[in-house]
Amino acid sequence: MSTTIWMIVRTNILKNKTAMVNQIEFSLPEYRYGFHLVTSDILSRIGELPETGLLNLFIKHTSAGLTINENADSSVLSDFKTFFSDWIPENYPKFEHDYEGSDDMPAHLKSSIIGQSLTIPITNHRLNLGTWQGIYLCEFRYSGGRRKFVATIYT
Amino acid sequence: MSTTIWMIVRTNILKNKTAMVNQIEFSLPEYRYGFHLVTSDILSRIGELPETGLLNLFIKHTSAGLTINENADSSVLSDFKTFFSDWIPENYPKFEHDYEGSDDMPAHLKSSIIGQSLTIPITNHRLNLGTWQGIYLCEFRYSGGRRKFVATIYT
Amino acid sequence: MSTTIWMIVRTNILKNKTAMVNQIEFSLPEYRYGFHLVTSDILSRIGELPETGLLNLFIKHTSAGLTINENADSSVLSDFKTFFSDWIPENYPKFEHDYEGSDDMPAHLKSSIIGQSLTIPITNHRLNLGTWQGIYLCEFRYSGGRRKFVATIYT
Repeated sequence: MSTTIWMIVRTNILKNKTAMVNQIEFSLPEYRYGFHLVTSDILSRIGELPETGLLNLFIKHTSAGLTINENADSSVLSDFKTFFSDWIPENYPKFEHDYEGSDDMPAHLKSSIIGQSLTIPITNHRLNLGTWQGIYLCEFRYSGGRRKFVATIYT
Repeated sequence: MSTTIWMIVRTNILKNKTAMVNQIEFSLPEYRYGFHLVTSDILSRIGELPETGLLNLFIKHTSAGLTINENADSSVLSDFKTFFSDWIPENYPKFEHDYEGSDDMPAHLKSSIIGQSLTIPITNHRLNLGTWQGIYLCEFRYSGGRRKFVATIYT
Repeated sequence: MSTTIWMIVRTNILKNKTAMVNQIEFSLPEYRYGFHLVTSDILSRIGELPETGLLNLFIKHTSAGLTINENADSSVLSDFKTFFSDWIPENYPKFEHDYEGSDDMPAHLKSSIIGQSLTIPITNHRLNLGTWQGIYLCEFRYSGGRRKFVATIYT
């Protein structure tokens, strides 16, 4: 083995810079219709974080979503619920897809607009969120049941 | 080489856990204005998937988008089209950017709200989507032409 | 070391395919309320890009956002501002969260709808953006101050 090549291997390993992937699947109990702060629930499921990397968090549903927003004042959560309910109403007269209930098509639209995954930097073994940032589970159905997630961590 | 360091190298390699990147560029034929399920078209372009990893799918345009939603009932696709067309109309009186056509500025807004990339977990050599999740190409122009994509796969 | 294993290590290294992570934190000066093209500002902060990989750009705030849109005509930027201001108004009568100012709750909603991170492919040492794509900083507050970012680069 040439000395040069070996030095590159050794440097990457010693600096813990060779990327590795770790993946965890889990579910969360049913949440009621609305927006819910779940940062600590998520962290408790995914275990120890690497020194530096990224977390991709993915929700395996089309009527719920994930976003990041203010983690301090619960009125932000309720104002999100109010605004989204007013904006995409259940009685939208042109919707054709309604046999799963009047909350279903609005839930699909909200899910795509909010998004179903987050990619968050990891720094010093923690999610590198801003002071006021927390992870929201967005439940857009009245009885959405347990929701399934995939967490993929790169280091 | 110290035995300890070599053991780390060997463990990572044997477990196929050393991350690698693979990137594919491709285009899809023109789709008409609206939302289109393209999961199998995308998969046919990107070839075999690794055991574990992430797919980042990126569309190189500002008047189209990518999202994930229901893969079963075509009325979801048409209700998406109806809602987005009503919500951001072509005749919005305050828009200044109109010399590329009345569908252009609404297309830019929809593209940013839906988003231009998806990051999806890969598990057991498959996209780890939920049962009802499929990839939508969102064509927000009347004559958008062929659309270009970059798929980046980490394992 | 077995020849087979060593060949895998050597191939990955020689092809520069072993993934590595690099992370940079920085801030940008205060921008006024609205949408701003910041592609070159971002690139100047993150330095040389790898041959192939992904950039994840994350803004550590809940009242600002990041998106990709047209990089050529400034009327697109002003039409974004007009549309978002009209759509989520400051005087929305049902908002409870208003003690930080009338622009605060609309800013939270816009931030989640636009999103707080972008993941962009890197190809040939450049961001692999489409011809018309640029990075927008979306400032949803009137006095948002300096904004903090984390750039995570995988190669």
